[in-house]
Amino acid sequence: MSDYPSILLEQAVSQMSSLPGVGKKTALRLVLHMLRRSDDEVQAFADAFTRLKKEVVYCRECHNISDNELCPICSSTRRDHTTICVVENVQDVMSIENTGQYSGVYHVLGGVISPMDGVGPKDIEIDSLIERISRGDVQEVILALPTTMEGDTTNFYIYRRIQNTDRFQAGLRTQTGELRITQLARGVAVGNELEYTDEITLGRSIINRTEFTT
Amino acid sequence: MSDYPSILLEQAVSQMSSLPGVGKKTALRLVLHMLRRSDDEVQAFADAFTRLKKEVVYCRECHNISDNELCPICSSTRRDHTTICVVENVQDVMSIENTGQYSGVYHVLGGVISPMDGVGPKDIEIDSLIERISRGDVQEVILALPTTMEGDTTNFYIYRRIQNTDRFQAGLRTQTGELRITQLARGVAVGNELEYTDEITLGRSIINRTEFTT
Repeated sequence: MSDYPSILLEQAVSQMSSLPGVGKKTALRLVLHMLRRSDDEVQAFADAFTRLKKEVVYCRECHNISDNELCPICSSTRRDHTTICVVENVQDVMSIENTGQYSGVYHVLGGVISPMDGVGPKDIEIDSLIERISRGDVQEVILALPTTMEGDTTNFYIYRRIQNTDRFQAGLRTQTGELRITQLARGVAVGNELEYTDEITLGRSIINRTEFTT
Repeated sequence: MSDYPSILLEQAVSQMSSLPGVGKKTALRLVLHMLRRSDDEVQAFADAFTRLKKEVVYCRECHNISDNELCPICSSTRRDHTTICVVENVQDVMSIENTGQYSGVYHVLGGVISPMDGVGPKDIEIDSLIERISRGDVQEVILALPTTMEGDTTNFYIYRRIQNTDRFQAGLRTQTGELRITQLARGVAVGNELEYTDEITLGRSIINRTEFTT
């Protein structure tokens, strides 16, 4: 695809196809679809992105996207503020919220440690996590990062940082167990056939088998 | 997916997922990707669509999208202005241009007749096509509409309208053949296996077989 009949069209297609996973042909189709909308509709489309970029704030506690200084979850009195679930990004918060199984708060790292991509511990929200934990109210930190090498590296780094906090040292020494560090259960996905489950997951799910309940 | 942590985010996702074929999850991914861009980049993204909508014009001859009153093809002296290729939309012009096999001009209908969708002959650029043909310079009209019921209906309607023009009537009576009406060749696609070609296409390609050339 080249030789657009209009430079304006070419620019719009170029912007649309700059989005990940959107090719030139799809972009052209989307742009021509948008051309059939009214002026107001196109303006509303464009404004949604500039407004988001200009006005969005990140929660000062959990660093999730927010409209205010504190996000709805961090400002809720119905949430358990002693449990922090550490996730990579905004989508992960929404995924866990959609399960309806979690009533604690979150900490959005905004990425995982990845030397290959040039992402170090200082590039993501680890210091602020340690600072939150050091304040003393937190009783459990759930590490819910992706099960990748980068996720595991980040888990381990966070674990070591927490171990070095005065609080954790004190807890360990006195055996009060006041600060738990946990991770999501690994195992066969609900609804999955055993034959399609990879060997590592299946192996772990045998080792970590639980009591049968009905 | 519901419960967005931010109304601004929700609005941007809603706009993105209003595009055909873009679901809520994909829209969220695209919007969060865009959030990582600079203010200027997001502004440029938004501006491309509002500018296109506000400033785009349609060529007064062929009705293709254009930056000027006459599109680059219609204003070119290197094109054969006696041959008009009638197509449904802008993408079709670009597809034919990309073959490098056509040197005539186009006429973009902006749709095909479709009673089911409430599209009648007056809703697409048929009158302007007849007007162009009636001016007298045109020697060939190539009907290059989709091979669908709607495309065939539109082909037939245009054919009858052309037959009713004074020019064509005169041409028919005097047997000068001065105005040809043609259509794209139908047959087995280049590179296709016979066993995967549908019966109607294969049948036509036997009837309309051509001399073997090397």
